[in-house]
Amino acid sequence: MSQWQRQRSTTVYENAWIRVREDEVTRPDGTPGIYGVVALQHPTVFVVPLTDDDEVVLVEVDRYAIGRMSLEVPAGGSDGEDPLHAARRELREETGLVADEWRPLAVNYSFNGVCDAPGHVFLACGLRPAGVGADRVGDVGGAADAAGAGPVDVAAEQAVEGIVGVRRVPWREALDLVRDGGITDAETVAALLHTAVALGRVR
Amino acid sequence: MSQWQRQRSTTVYENAWIRVREDEVTRPDGTPGIYGVVALQHPTVFVVPLTDDDEVVLVEVDRYAIGRMSLEVPAGGSDGEDPLHAARRELREETGLVADEWRPLAVNYSFNGVCDAPGHVFLACGLRPAGVGADRVGDVGGAADAAGAGPVDVAAEQAVEGIVGVRRVPWREALDLVRDGGITDAETVAALLHTAVALGRVR
Repeated sequence: MSQWQRQRSTTVYENAWIRVREDEVTRPDGTPGIYGVVALQHPTVFVVPLTDDDEVVLVEVDRYAIGRMSLEVPAGGSDGEDPLHAARRELREETGLVADEWRPLAVNYSFNGVCDAPGHVFLACGLRPAGVGADRVGDVGGAADAAGAGPVDVAAEQAVEGIVGVRRVPWREALDLVRDGGITDAETVAALLHTAVALGRVR
Repeated sequence: MSQWQRQRSTTVYENAWIRVREDEVTRPDGTPGIYGVVALQHPTVFVVPLTDDDEVVLVEVDRYAIGRMSLEVPAGGSDGEDPLHAARRELREETGLVADEWRPLAVNYSFNGVCDAPGHVFLACGLRPAGVGADRVGDVGGAADAAGAGPVDVAAEQAVEGIVGVRRVPWREALDLVRDGGITDAETVAALLHTAVALGRVR
């Protein structure tokens, strides 16, 4: 049970991705205050694509909100879809890859002092180019795989999102990038720990 | 150089912590669009307090934005202070602890698809209760330690932020909590990987 009490709530801004509200609240210590909350319209999905050679497939994204390039795991809004379906779509749109094995790792919350932004983190293995192998004829993976089997213009999808490159980074190098500031996206760093924990690589 | 072009920018909401703007943009593929950006008024600081017994000190916070309890590393807004100064203050206010050793681990960005929210991550070791030992007389640590040496009513600070408990969690158990959903704060998960990488605990 929350110690916070909401007295009044006003939507101050809304677009297709976020809704911002200002609430009049009574704080846990009983004092009155205001709280601005940024609620995502839909959960986000994050995909850690790990190749058979232990490389993480990362996208280089021109991030408008921070005004700089960022090296990240493929991610995006779920747009109301099932999270796994959305994860398959994002992986395919952003990297041109499909995966045979999907493992849900975690549901976490980004920047929860301000945002109501749940994120579903998946590990994707058994990677291959879309349109090569089973997904072309739809005979493996059934409905789940078919979800990502429609024609996708990867270059166009990348351009609209500001993705300027796709890099296969050996796992050890990805950790070096986390250490040295080459990866600064907090959700990517979190997704890599979820992966390390799931694979027993951290002690 | 960004591929995005900002055509027009309007502040649609602002409080002491965030400023929300809606920009009219030209997207990387040349199409027009709108982009809602949530800019933090000040960077955030995140502290991983690690005891001599290899326990992580976590706070249990009643998080208003997500409407649930969350187990997290001590964190908060820097309020325009130097990040290390803010980190010392947050550790002290939220846990009643001071640290003799501070190590900056990373600067990362939270939820950068929507937010401009830089975060400074620190590792804090050599922990002891505030008011015990050197910081009481201000003879060790110099100006930096003195920054956190004023009187702080920890219970009152905790109450206003909705902190309901402080837990010392053995490092291995913290990883188990990441795996099993006991820790869902993305920035805490990221801070733990920064720590694991810095201490050579992940391979």
